[in-house]
Amino acid sequence: MTDCLSDDALDLLFREARTHSTFLDRPVPVEVLQAVYDLAKMGPTSANCLPMRIVFVISSEAKERLRPHLSAGNVDKTMAAPVCAIIAHDLAFYDLLPETFPHTDARSWFAGNDAKIQETAFRNASLQGAYVMLAARALGLAAGPMSGFDNAGLDQEFFAGSAVRSNFLCNLGYGDAEGLRPRGPRLDFERTCTVL
Amino acid sequence: MTDCLSDDALDLLFREARTHSTFLDRPVPVEVLQAVYDLAKMGPTSANCLPMRIVFVISSEAKERLRPHLSAGNVDKTMAAPVCAIIAHDLAFYDLLPETFPHTDARSWFAGNDAKIQETAFRNASLQGAYVMLAARALGLAAGPMSGFDNAGLDQEFFAGSAVRSNFLCNLGYGDAEGLRPRGPRLDFERTCTVL
Repeated sequence: MTDCLSDDALDLLFREARTHSTFLDRPVPVEVLQAVYDLAKMGPTSANCLPMRIVFVISSEAKERLRPHLSAGNVDKTMAAPVCAIIAHDLAFYDLLPETFPHTDARSWFAGNDAKIQETAFRNASLQGAYVMLAARALGLAAGPMSGFDNAGLDQEFFAGSAVRSNFLCNLGYGDAEGLRPRGPRLDFERTCTVL
Repeated sequence: MTDCLSDDALDLLFREARTHSTFLDRPVPVEVLQAVYDLAKMGPTSANCLPMRIVFVISSEAKERLRPHLSAGNVDKTMAAPVCAIIAHDLAFYDLLPETFPHTDARSWFAGNDAKIQETAFRNASLQGAYVMLAARALGLAAGPMSGFDNAGLDQEFFAGSAVRSNFLCNLGYGDAEGLRPRGPRLDFERTCTVL
């Protein structure tokens, strides 16, 4: 196994990768979405809690269920994207800990502690959402993540009667570089990091 | 630029990568930590809000400041790790939006809305923390993320008088495969994902 990624690979994942609002008119096979998930699921979560759930919204019918909950600026690009992934988390994740973290009673760390459940689900599904975006890039897709939508309305439409709650949305497809705007400036190491 | 990562690269980042509790007795140069950050900073955040702040705890003196706030099970491995990164977020991140997202008044979306500030900082710094872990792996390091510590106590020690709050900890170093336990089982696509 290699010890480090090549420059080309670092470019693909980080340095040249961009948030995409426009995509080529090319469908994303479900097999590719499954391959993205099968990479992303390997990323670490605390106590292997794996709270992320994903709805891949592809069909026109399902897109129409999404539409009324999107912020105005996110409607057209989401309707046009090959896939919109609803990155969500299951607040009942801890019921699966006896299976995913079997060597101790990890379920008891959460049961009845709503604040810890919420925080753990939100943190770890966010980590997993990042793994999904980088896994998508690793397999040749481009990602367009968005926070601009009505979480409560979307949850009512897609997750009524369950403990699943939306976190963020991410359009996925094969990127169209024509649609890119200049990259926003980043904060450098000296402004954000301290070495003690 | 390549379109997809090689199998070797996918193994390094996802399929063969593991959470490490033990590391080789080999220091991590600050230049490598900076290189990790310089990759991770390129990952997407909503409205380019970039809330993550990192304290890289390396010296024995700084490790001792960390020690009393760690859960019992995390003390020895953290004291022995070459680096413990405190992945944190600045709740005043929105004051930098005129610089990082200059084409609109994005600061006004947050000022005075504490719930939105908290949620945005937590979600996006968690995403950025995932970018850090994958960037570390991409540069040959191993990561050992942890949620088991007293956030409030640690914040008082490291971030008193600021708007920076800890999110999670991540030990970093060159991995020692001798210390690995079997990987925990993952939830497969059919149990976590829906295609509509």
